[in-house]
Amino acid sequence: MILPVLSDVISAHNKIEPYIHNTPVLSSKSINSIIGADIYFKCENFQKVGAFKFRGATHAVLNLSEQEAKKGVTTHSSGNHAAALSLAAQNRKIPSYIVMPENTPEIKKKAVSGYDATIFFCKPTLEARETTLDKVQKETGAYFIHPYDNFNVICGQGTAALELLKEKEDLEIIIAPVGGGGLLSGTSISAKGISKNIEVIAAEPEMANDTFKSFKSGKLIPSVNPQTIADGLLTSLSDLTFEIIRNNVDNILLASEKSIVEAMKLIWERMKIIIEPSSAVPLAAILENKGKFKNKRVGIIISGGNVDLTNLPF
Amino acid sequence: MILPVLSDVISAHNKIEPYIHNTPVLSSKSINSIIGADIYFKCENFQKVGAFKFRGATHAVLNLSEQEAKKGVTTHSSGNHAAALSLAAQNRKIPSYIVMPENTPEIKKKAVSGYDATIFFCKPTLEARETTLDKVQKETGAYFIHPYDNFNVICGQGTAALELLKEKEDLEIIIAPVGGGGLLSGTSISAKGISKNIEVIAAEPEMANDTFKSFKSGKLIPSVNPQTIADGLLTSLSDLTFEIIRNNVDNILLASEKSIVEAMKLIWERMKIIIEPSSAVPLAAILENKGKFKNKRVGIIISGGNVDLTNLPF
Repeated sequence: MILPVLSDVISAHNKIEPYIHNTPVLSSKSINSIIGADIYFKCENFQKVGAFKFRGATHAVLNLSEQEAKKGVTTHSSGNHAAALSLAAQNRKIPSYIVMPENTPEIKKKAVSGYDATIFFCKPTLEARETTLDKVQKETGAYFIHPYDNFNVICGQGTAALELLKEKEDLEIIIAPVGGGGLLSGTSISAKGISKNIEVIAAEPEMANDTFKSFKSGKLIPSVNPQTIADGLLTSLSDLTFEIIRNNVDNILLASEKSIVEAMKLIWERMKIIIEPSSAVPLAAILENKGKFKNKRVGIIISGGNVDLTNLPF
Repeated sequence: MILPVLSDVISAHNKIEPYIHNTPVLSSKSINSIIGADIYFKCENFQKVGAFKFRGATHAVLNLSEQEAKKGVTTHSSGNHAAALSLAAQNRKIPSYIVMPENTPEIKKKAVSGYDATIFFCKPTLEARETTLDKVQKETGAYFIHPYDNFNVICGQGTAALELLKEKEDLEIIIAPVGGGGLLSGTSISAKGISKNIEVIAAEPEMANDTFKSFKSGKLIPSVNPQTIADGLLTSLSDLTFEIIRNNVDNILLASEKSIVEAMKLIWERMKIIIEPSSAVPLAAILENKGKFKNKRVGIIISGGNVDLTNLPF
């Protein structure tokens, strides 16, 4: 298994730079005083399509040969990767075919169709996703770009931490949420590549704790029907992301559903920015482990801001 | 009546600069394409206390003599000016006494008490506010800082447009919401002081259209029990703000309640920032008058981001 390294992330950044936003790094005096630490939020909710996923999808699409690209790209995704891949495909002027669970929030469906993707709905199970994707691939000949089990996607996702660490060089800790592990893998490669001394922490919902269990036991244990408000973190690690995480991540902290909602509300109220529940998981984990972060300089990747505004948890 | 001019706003800016945020100017490709114009949002929702009001309050407090300041400051306010004045007083280490309608949203009450203000609740009528304020003033000897009928407050509010026009020099139109007229007055002084060619437009809720009626008739017509979701715009002009607005404002556009909610949702969804309903009134007015803004470079002052998240209109 070939694992990406820092130079791969830097090369990804050079390629995708003309297409992405270098998103702002924000901080909040009042949140800092609640935690007793200096926290820097890398705001991928302001990224195109409203999520970091646009980085990885853009990089993967740009890396296809003319031959591979011409029949288009396809994926299965609960939303952000779907929108990201559709826009990346639109930018390269190739078609995209998206397999989506039928219970995907309206706002995410609308985003994808707005980028000229063709949508195929399926039942909200991993099996249904894979069967439908197989069918779509056979019919169209499109190139499958997995949401996270993909070398180039992971390198793209790592560029958010790369930008963060360029802007805030002296971070002692960096935290990313973990679902399938694409963002966490990329983040960990950037951080450890830049300095072995930066502590890389994963934040995961208690109710979808497959990474925690896998990390502690040393073998990949997939989630079984996880239920969390952090709907971007329902997926399980792949062999590739698990291997990278084992090599680079120092610790995994869990967050309860209650803390996730509390952290989300705190960020909305104090920072006046809209983040999705998955993005609140790192701050939720910090709220539950304040002592660990006392007086530290901490970077958090805010993964995205796509929320169904008619269905908020507060 | 002495009216403020551009040099007064510049002098205010020099004084308050160490205390305020120079807030970001954001834009949204998708909102631009909906309107067919280039819109630049001056984001005072990211200002301290979450609203432009901190500019005016800070300036007014800094301008008090030692003698005037030592017994503290007082005001009546439905929220943002209250929080702003409390923090400005705290910064100068003087007490603040705030008269507030009892139906003020929780989030605004909490903010004020967090800045060490003493709160006096009253019935939600202008009469009750004034009677209670009178009593508080007599008891404490505190200096009354009106939310908008105050020369120094108006100069402070004008500094947002000053920063916006420094960053985006070639704006053709600038729009601010109007309630009591403090922000609009300050904005118009900055804009017209910098260039007579910049069109200054006020945006007002149809359901609180006292400025529209006053502007068209040439005499001050106060609101009678206005009902709008834009709860920062319920107040009526004062003689001072009316005079400034008559001199400097080119046009007033109205926005329906439906458009205000639509514009607010559009900004939340597309820009991932939290704005209060009053801040959505300019974009709502643009949505109802798209033709007027076609291909123009337009600046909007986003007045604030203090919303009760448990009571949203969508």
